[in-house]
Amino acid sequence: MSAKPSLHTSISPALLHLYDLSNSVVVIIDVFRATSTIASALYNGAKSVIPVDSVAKAIEISRRIDGIAAGERDGMIAEGLSHGNSPLEYTRDFIENKTLVLTTTNGTRLLQMALDRNADTIISGSFPNLSAVCDFLVKENKNVVLGCAGWKDRFNLEDTLFAGAVIHAVSRHFTIHCDSSLMAETMYLKNKNKLTEFAPKLTHYHRLVERFGLIEDINFCLTPDVANILPLYKEGKLVTG
Amino acid sequence: MSAKPSLHTSISPALLHLYDLSNSVVVIIDVFRATSTIASALYNGAKSVIPVDSVAKAIEISRRIDGIAAGERDGMIAEGLSHGNSPLEYTRDFIENKTLVLTTTNGTRLLQMALDRNADTIISGSFPNLSAVCDFLVKENKNVVLGCAGWKDRFNLEDTLFAGAVIHAVSRHFTIHCDSSLMAETMYLKNKNKLTEFAPKLTHYHRLVERFGLIEDINFCLTPDVANILPLYKEGKLVTG
Repeated sequence: MSAKPSLHTSISPALLHLYDLSNSVVVIIDVFRATSTIASALYNGAKSVIPVDSVAKAIEISRRIDGIAAGERDGMIAEGLSHGNSPLEYTRDFIENKTLVLTTTNGTRLLQMALDRNADTIISGSFPNLSAVCDFLVKENKNVVLGCAGWKDRFNLEDTLFAGAVIHAVSRHFTIHCDSSLMAETMYLKNKNKLTEFAPKLTHYHRLVERFGLIEDINFCLTPDVANILPLYKEGKLVTG
Repeated sequence: MSAKPSLHTSISPALLHLYDLSNSVVVIIDVFRATSTIASALYNGAKSVIPVDSVAKAIEISRRIDGIAAGERDGMIAEGLSHGNSPLEYTRDFIENKTLVLTTTNGTRLLQMALDRNADTIISGSFPNLSAVCDFLVKENKNVVLGCAGWKDRFNLEDTLFAGAVIHAVSRHFTIHCDSSLMAETMYLKNKNKLTEFAPKLTHYHRLVERFGLIEDINFCLTPDVANILPLYKEGKLVTG
């Protein structure tokens, strides 16, 4: 019987360098809201989502390929763009058969870091596509690094809660010696039946809800399997895996 | 009425740069075992503890001042030294009126980082001196950064549990908007009545107990107020504050 693959949780982009990504599936986690938006867009029929690191690049690429340039900075639609980082914006009517070119504060930056560190495979995860992520990880049977995007390198709980949900679902298939993963699963189990009630305690909740009134976004981002699709990174694009 | 000072928790040395230390009391936390050992040595009458970053420096300084050179690397007594990082080694018989020159893998490194970042005040904390730390923080009424030493920049739960114990005791005196602190307090409250039973789940427990048989060290390091003294950093030394 061969040993089970390992699973680790990186709770901030500033800690990603501690983990060997070159033989791992890396799950990019940015619950509020990049990876929830990516799941929503692909679930509603987007051809692909191209993550980019600047507004200028989003505009340039979207013009060239006739795509939708979108993104946020500090929680707001980025200056120069007409579409933001709300998963509810990307309905089937709007996004079907189109390409979304997306830039965000934390999630797309973390994805670029995983690329730079030669990750074997990159997928994106969020509560809306929880089951698809778990099914893929079990099927692949490779080492896993759950990469939390955080907020400007700070730890945040919503990404960790999602990591905990994944760990709870897949732990019997992996060898886990990692205090971050133990903490993430514990925090998830404590809050799993009251995620939306717990949300007002989160730093990022205040940023999104009190400043921008995005309560419906928050509720979508905390609901498991409402956009249950697997975003898989291939040749510069996230496509349905 | 003036605003309450802020409290943040830095859950890895790799995240310390995110916090402004220049107007803060920084609590260096390395539960297994540096800050427990510092509390033990001062509680048992050591004149001071001089934290240094290398074995060579520990030997050189201890010779010059007729002190005790001590320290560990990767959990073991460091090569070239006769004394390690066990709090139980520093009994009153042995350490009273002596100076301990200590080098460790994580705790003394974090203290140096706090110095480099111009921390206003530096103290060290661990369960054996929990109440002394809390009393000092409330009395000072300044901003606080709880600095977890972790393990080679990785998050560990024992330091976070201690941060949670401090937060639980002092939270009403501070303004806390920090997911790390919320997580730390939650993890502490879940485990506070069974810290020693919880310990076998920790990565570092396996390092210390399975490899080195240090179960008595672990139990001491998890017992509140058994060496209840305040180690305060002043002019290169930790002295009783």
